[in-house]
Amino acid sequence: MKPIETLKNELSEIADLKGAVNVLYWDMETYMPKGGTAARAKQVAMLEAIVHERFIGEDVSNPLGELVNLDSGEIINGLDEETSRLVNEIWRDYHRAVALPKEFVEELSHTSSMAHPNWVEAREKNDFNLFAPHLEKLIALKHREIGYLDTQDTPYDTLLDEFEPGFTTANINVLFGELKTALVPMIKKIQESGVNTKQEILHQYYDADKQWEFSEMILKDIGYDFHCGRQDKAVHPFTIEFHPTDVRVTTRINEHNLLDCLTGSIHEGGHALYEQGLDQKWYGTPFCQAISYGIHESQSRLWENLVGLSKPFWEYYFPKLQTAFPENLSAVALEDFYRAVNTIKPGFIRVDADEMTYNLHIMLRFEIEQLIINEGADVASLPELWNDKMEEYLGIRPETDTLGVLQDVHWSHGSFGYFPTYALGNLYNIIMFNKAKEKLPDLDNQIRSGNFLELRNWLKSNIHQLGRRQTAKEMIKSISGEDVTAKPFINYLKKKYSKIYSI
Amino acid sequence: MKPIETLKNELSEIADLKGAVNVLYWDMETYMPKGGTAARAKQVAMLEAIVHERFIGEDVSNPLGELVNLDSGEIINGLDEETSRLVNEIWRDYHRAVALPKEFVEELSHTSSMAHPNWVEAREKNDFNLFAPHLEKLIALKHREIGYLDTQDTPYDTLLDEFEPGFTTANINVLFGELKTALVPMIKKIQESGVNTKQEILHQYYDADKQWEFSEMILKDIGYDFHCGRQDKAVHPFTIEFHPTDVRVTTRINEHNLLDCLTGSIHEGGHALYEQGLDQKWYGTPFCQAISYGIHESQSRLWENLVGLSKPFWEYYFPKLQTAFPENLSAVALEDFYRAVNTIKPGFIRVDADEMTYNLHIMLRFEIEQLIINEGADVASLPELWNDKMEEYLGIRPETDTLGVLQDVHWSHGSFGYFPTYALGNLYNIIMFNKAKEKLPDLDNQIRSGNFLELRNWLKSNIHQLGRRQTAKEMIKSISGEDVTAKPFINYLKKKYSKIYSI
Repeated sequence: MKPIETLKNELSEIADLKGAVNVLYWDMETYMPKGGTAARAKQVAMLEAIVHERFIGEDVSNPLGELVNLDSGEIINGLDEETSRLVNEIWRDYHRAVALPKEFVEELSHTSSMAHPNWVEAREKNDFNLFAPHLEKLIALKHREIGYLDTQDTPYDTLLDEFEPGFTTANINVLFGELKTALVPMIKKIQESGVNTKQEILHQYYDADKQWEFSEMILKDIGYDFHCGRQDKAVHPFTIEFHPTDVRVTTRINEHNLLDCLTGSIHEGGHALYEQGLDQKWYGTPFCQAISYGIHESQSRLWENLVGLSKPFWEYYFPKLQTAFPENLSAVALEDFYRAVNTIKPGFIRVDADEMTYNLHIMLRFEIEQLIINEGADVASLPELWNDKMEEYLGIRPETDTLGVLQDVHWSHGSFGYFPTYALGNLYNIIMFNKAKEKLPDLDNQIRSGNFLELRNWLKSNIHQLGRRQTAKEMIKSISGEDVTAKPFINYLKKKYSKIYSI
Repeated sequence: MKPIETLKNELSEIADLKGAVNVLYWDMETYMPKGGTAARAKQVAMLEAIVHERFIGEDVSNPLGELVNLDSGEIINGLDEETSRLVNEIWRDYHRAVALPKEFVEELSHTSSMAHPNWVEAREKNDFNLFAPHLEKLIALKHREIGYLDTQDTPYDTLLDEFEPGFTTANINVLFGELKTALVPMIKKIQESGVNTKQEILHQYYDADKQWEFSEMILKDIGYDFHCGRQDKAVHPFTIEFHPTDVRVTTRINEHNLLDCLTGSIHEGGHALYEQGLDQKWYGTPFCQAISYGIHESQSRLWENLVGLSKPFWEYYFPKLQTAFPENLSAVALEDFYRAVNTIKPGFIRVDADEMTYNLHIMLRFEIEQLIINEGADVASLPELWNDKMEEYLGIRPETDTLGVLQDVHWSHGSFGYFPTYALGNLYNIIMFNKAKEKLPDLDNQIRSGNFLELRNWLKSNIHQLGRRQTAKEMIKSISGEDVTAKPFINYLKKKYSKIYSI
């Protein structure tokens, strides 16, 4: 067999193992009883170590070494362009993995599995001290990880590189600077506009089961395949894949906030369409993997915001929502509902934030993560630091840590460097959506009639099926002909919200 | 480190891996979308192979080889009695495992994972042909397995030995003979008694959610620890352990049969109490494992039948059940309800069968399995063979395969030799229960007030905590002073049902 075929076979088996580990993670955050925590932490740590050992083992390094210089990453002559690209991406993963000792991989996995339920409890009980010692351990492990990996501009950049390859803190600072300059005055104008978007419409009592049904209907409509997936509940919604034929979403329900479940489902549905849309004939290889976390977020946020908060979307779904909740909505006008779901208002919780202030939530996390990783900010100081930044960016100060530093799951997973990808997703997705609209001039009408097929197919052909054939930067350039900037997103926000708020 | 300590550490890690595989099996039978079948089959097969390789690997064989002759099983001099026993049990497992090639383990796992959903579909659609090709493959694999293992009296005995070590077909034939001789005339008398036990009480409409709540209440009451477990729904109820701190039960609900969910939950709760009651300080070793499938069934069936179908049990729970289902039960007398749940009546479905005819269901399976394994009975002939045996044993003939040969999950798992352990469980459990009553003279009163603590503690100390320190035969002898016979069970049935049916 050719080395590339041997390699693909081995990678396919490793992917099966990774999928198996993901079943354990999924269960951990959906159904696992609390008593199972310690055993589960050992189980996932062992399996992560097995996956790691296998990926850096001879069955990968031997065939890979025939295709690329394992130390330098230089491709050996004679490979066609596609294979070169594939090998380059495999090597990038290999190079990163081989730098990490097995014991480290095991310890990081174990520590984050033990941290997660303590984060859940800390959040529930509004007691940061329950989570703090775990967070300290995770930060120490992240410093060790940085030590193992190739040096980037800053320690934080080394972590960032895992989530958004090719992006540095400097790059992101430029984009976020652009964004902040536009957003802050825009939000100020909105706050001063005196327009009331009747947000209270969303905060009546909405029965949990009916919300659930509605969210599953929308998931089906946008093309999420329940034959190869399912939706469950989780404290913090997430999507996870065991294989392209088993991609699961989660959401959460708040009977006094209609948007929690709906936007959670649509967001995760967007992630899931990406995973379900990957090209299975490359299973196990980078060509059957998402480009980056930012591109992943572009998919979730495209469906959540650009589709799910649009007028055509609600022209189709609002009458159905009225039927499901007649007591709450039969007297509400579509226009009022549309404005309510598009209320711009600084709030404490990132995942509940509107499209505009959302980005400020990301910026404050981005700053805090740099302080933690580059400047050694003390864990004990984080609640205060968080609240200060919140006041600086959003003009409000959380009264509890549950509404502040404890709100997000990411750090309990040891994920530092993930947050900026959410805002990048916002910048990417409008670039993609603008191109899709150009290619599908009838798109608004299609959405207006609950038909998402052509949009989904466009995303599938132009993004999902390509896997990691391009970097995020290359993909955006190939779609729009331009480098990533915040302009298209700013223009989108201006156009949409100048109407809603008459500014 | 001493070899026994090295061995215990390694076995503990292998147990973690087995627990991880069990998470995948659990998901497969509770939540997995159908599309995930093929990928999951690969995942569990790979993990089973990893577990197998590790168990027959040097980290086990080296320390084990210092304690026992790996070929003969002869214990090396100088070990104390407890350690000798432990080593002997580890060696038994090792000796059986080392005979099986990794590829075989992988193929058997893969084949049964692919078979399971096809069994589900075949059962749903009443189409044996959907399952038949899978069953053929599994039977062929079982023949291969028999070829690898030490020869027993018959090929079927080789399989039986995995489920009920120390028992042969000949042993079981004696016990089943005794049982059949007593049961057949007893059932005949009951059928001729003309007594009507008003079974229709159980077949009214009972709301699924309320049944679920009631079953969870009983599980809590009998001492199932929800902090270290949970209940879910499955096509065929089962219990599965990921670790003694995460033992899960499943049940199923029929809105027109009150007993399906309740007895399912109590039965699985009995299994789960065994797993939750194991001695964790021996985790990974045979001293933290159930003795045999028969002893496991003794625990499930003790709670399901000896407790759950007893008068004192319903004296406590019937008023609560009346409160939960006033429309159905407020006008029903306790005595009538007690008689209804103890109706003796031949039916098609084993898991719905009463305590008496249940054993005939087992006998027919025992005979058919021997025909399959020892005589090469053709898969295509099984539906007919099943129906013939059903008529012979129970005097009724199923009109569909769903009510016949397709009803049980076991063969789809490749489990041949499991069934007889259910009837052995019946014989064991009354012996245990009689001893418990002797030691706890107040037991009936305790049950009458919903207090199961002393019974649970007795079972824990005398059975659960001992792990595999004794064989099933040894345990029964140490409890009762006698060898296993069917007499205590027959006496129990006679006493109980002569009252109910006035025979």
